[in-house]
Amino acid sequence: MSPHIDDVSASARIADPGEGISREELALAARNHALPLEALRYDVTPPGLHYVLTHYDIPAADPSTWQLTVQGDVRRPLAVSMDDLRSLPSTTVRVTMECAGNGRADLTPRPVSQPWLVEAVGTAEWTGVPLRTLLADAAPGPGAVEAVFTGADHGVERGVEQDYARSLPLSVAAGRDSDVLLAYAMNGHPLPPQHGHPLRLVVPGWYGMAHVKWLRDIRITDTPFTGFQQAEAYRLRQDPGEAGEPVTRIAPRSLMIPPGFPDFMSRSRVVRPGTVRLEGRAWSGLAPVTSVEVSTDDGGTWDTADLDPAGGAPWAWRRWEYTWTAAPGRYVLTTRAHDAGGHVQPVDPPWNRGGFANNAVQRVDVLSLHHRG
Amino acid sequence: MSPHIDDVSASARIADPGEGISREELALAARNHALPLEALRYDVTPPGLHYVLTHYDIPAADPSTWQLTVQGDVRRPLAVSMDDLRSLPSTTVRVTMECAGNGRADLTPRPVSQPWLVEAVGTAEWTGVPLRTLLADAAPGPGAVEAVFTGADHGVERGVEQDYARSLPLSVAAGRDSDVLLAYAMNGHPLPPQHGHPLRLVVPGWYGMAHVKWLRDIRITDTPFTGFQQAEAYRLRQDPGEAGEPVTRIAPRSLMIPPGFPDFMSRSRVVRPGTVRLEGRAWSGLAPVTSVEVSTDDGGTWDTADLDPAGGAPWAWRRWEYTWTAAPGRYVLTTRAHDAGGHVQPVDPPWNRGGFANNAVQRVDVLSLHHRG
Repeated sequence: MSPHIDDVSASARIADPGEGISREELALAARNHALPLEALRYDVTPPGLHYVLTHYDIPAADPSTWQLTVQGDVRRPLAVSMDDLRSLPSTTVRVTMECAGNGRADLTPRPVSQPWLVEAVGTAEWTGVPLRTLLADAAPGPGAVEAVFTGADHGVERGVEQDYARSLPLSVAAGRDSDVLLAYAMNGHPLPPQHGHPLRLVVPGWYGMAHVKWLRDIRITDTPFTGFQQAEAYRLRQDPGEAGEPVTRIAPRSLMIPPGFPDFMSRSRVVRPGTVRLEGRAWSGLAPVTSVEVSTDDGGTWDTADLDPAGGAPWAWRRWEYTWTAAPGRYVLTTRAHDAGGHVQPVDPPWNRGGFANNAVQRVDVLSLHHRG
Repeated sequence: MSPHIDDVSASARIADPGEGISREELALAARNHALPLEALRYDVTPPGLHYVLTHYDIPAADPSTWQLTVQGDVRRPLAVSMDDLRSLPSTTVRVTMECAGNGRADLTPRPVSQPWLVEAVGTAEWTGVPLRTLLADAAPGPGAVEAVFTGADHGVERGVEQDYARSLPLSVAAGRDSDVLLAYAMNGHPLPPQHGHPLRLVVPGWYGMAHVKWLRDIRITDTPFTGFQQAEAYRLRQDPGEAGEPVTRIAPRSLMIPPGFPDFMSRSRVVRPGTVRLEGRAWSGLAPVTSVEVSTDDGGTWDTADLDPAGGAPWAWRRWEYTWTAAPGRYVLTTRAHDAGGHVQPVDPPWNRGGFANNAVQRVDVLSLHHRG
C-alpha cells in the first residue's frame, strides 16, 4: 500500500465515556497554553502569559521580506511590505481574546481536540493599521461579500492539507465600528513568533480563530468562503451531518483569581477563615458586561460583585471584586457574567460536537482552614 | 469533621495501567507549558516560548520594595534591594534549562504529576550578579555546608504547607566555575512574572528545580537542608521507602525540530520524498556534548549528525543538522546525544517513582508522501 495522508490524519471524534485525556490531546496541551489564572490580576497580560493556540507550526518569518497581498474582487490589487504598513497611520486597541474551544475539556462527552479547561484567554494592546484603510485603497467591487485571510501556517487537518484561512463578512472587515486591525505590535513590541510575527489580524469581540496569524494574503470574494476552517471546523453542530451555525463572537464569561494558595497537584485552594477578597475579570464579545455575580455555595445562591467602570477599552475585560466572609469548611466558588444583550453564563455546559463556546461557569474548590488546622 | 489540609492534598501516586491523563494532570499542563519544538530553531528562545513550571501561583511582586536577605551561618548578614543588586558588577550567561520532570508522561507506569512529554526546555540569556559576590560579602562561617534558597511562592504539596525552598552545596553555590547567578534579567529585559520577577537563582547545568524563582532569602547552614523539595521531592527512588539519590545535573538530550508540516491532532509529520534537512539541539549538564546521532529507522541503525562548534556558551545547547533522503513511506525518526562524560541517551526510558531525568530518545512519526499522493 502506498502511503496516504489519512495514515496520519483522522476524522473528528468524541471521547468514550470515562476516557482519560489521550496522548494526542496532551501533546496539544504541552504546545499550546492557557493563562495561569492568577495572571487575571494584570489589566494587560504580560508576555508569555496570554493564551496561545497554534493549529500547525509557528512559521519562521523574515519581516524584511514579508509581503501582504490584497487581491480578488478589487479595483487596485495591493502588495505591501512591513515598512509600508508601519508608514501608515496606526491605532492601538486593548482586546480580550479567547479561544473558541475554551471549556472543551469539561464537556461530557468530550470532543477530542485541544483540551482547554476555562483559561484560554488573555488581554493585549495591539497596534497596527485599521483594515478598512487598506480595503478602501484596494476598492472592493460592488458584488464583493467577504474578505478571506490566509496565514503562512501550513498543515493537515482531518485529511485536508491547507494553509490556515478564515473569512469575515466585508461589512465586519471594513466596518467603522469594529476596529479590525492589521497588527504588527503587541504590548508595544513586535509580535512574538507565536502570536503571528510579523503580522496578524485582530478582530475585537470575536473568538481567536478569526484573528489570523502570520497573515500574508487577503482575497476579496463575491461568494462566501467554503474553506476548511470556515465550513468544516468552527461550526456549532449537534450531529455530524449538519451545516451548523458558524462560531463568531465571544459569549460572556467571568473568571475568578483563585483565592489563597494552591495544592500543587489538585490545584484546590486553601484560604484562612475570615475576610477573603475575591477578584476577577469579565468580558463578552456580544455586548458590554453589565453585572457579575458570585456564589460561594456552588451556584445555590448568587450575590452581586462590584464591577469596575468600563473605561475606554470596550473590547477588554472588566475587573470585579467581592468580599467573602469564610467560615472553616469546604466550598465551591463560582462566578457568572451578564451582558447588555441579556446573555448570561449557564451553569450547565452547552454541548456541541466541536466543543466550541462553552461558557459554563468556572468552579473553584476552596478549603477554609486555620493555619496548622 | 473539621476540615484538614489532607482534604485537598493527596500523597504521590502512580497511574494505573492504561489510565489516561487525569483532569488534575491536565490542569497542570494548561498552566505550565513546554517549548513548541519548532522553536528549537532559535539560538535563544523568544519570550513566551521557553518552558515554564510553577509549583504554586506566580506571586505578585513589587521590585521597588523587594528585599533579598542573606543570613544564617554568616559573619555579616545582608539585606539588599533590587537597586543594590543592579549597582553591582553583572554578568550575562546563556543557559539551557530543562525541567527535571521532562519525559515523565512517556513513562510506564506514569508517575502522576506535571505530565511533560519531551519538550520542557528553553535557552535564555540571564543577566545578574554572580552569587559568589554576595556570599563573599556575607562571609560564611568555617562550618557552613549549604546555602538554602527560598522563594516567595507558597503552597501545599502532599500535605506539607511550604514556601518553595531548595539548597545547594556551598561548593557549588560559591564555586568559581559554576557561574551561579542572582538573575534579574532574561534576554535583556526584566524577568517576566512567570520566570521569577524580580529575582531568581540560575544554576547552569542543573535541572530547573534548583533555579529558585521569586528569590527572597538565602540561609547559610552547617547541616544539610531537609526541606520538602530537597528530601521528599526530586529524589530518584524505585520504592517509596528509599531515601533516594538527589536530582542534580541535566542528563544529555538531543531534540529534533519535527520536519515538514504537522497534522493538527496527531502531530505526525508529512514531508515530501527527496532530500529532507533535519536539524535540532543537544545539551548535557554533566559534560560537554561530543556527538549527536540520528536514526531514520526507529533506532535500528544510527548515523552521525553534523554538530556546530561549541562557541562561547558552555551551558547552552548546541545545534546539529543531518541530511536525510526520504523515500515514500512511514518512518520513526530518533536522535541521541553523547557527552564527554561517556553518557548517552537511552532508547528505553529510565524509570523512577518521581518520573525524573527521563532522557530517553525522542521519537518523531513521519509520513513521506508526494503532494496529493
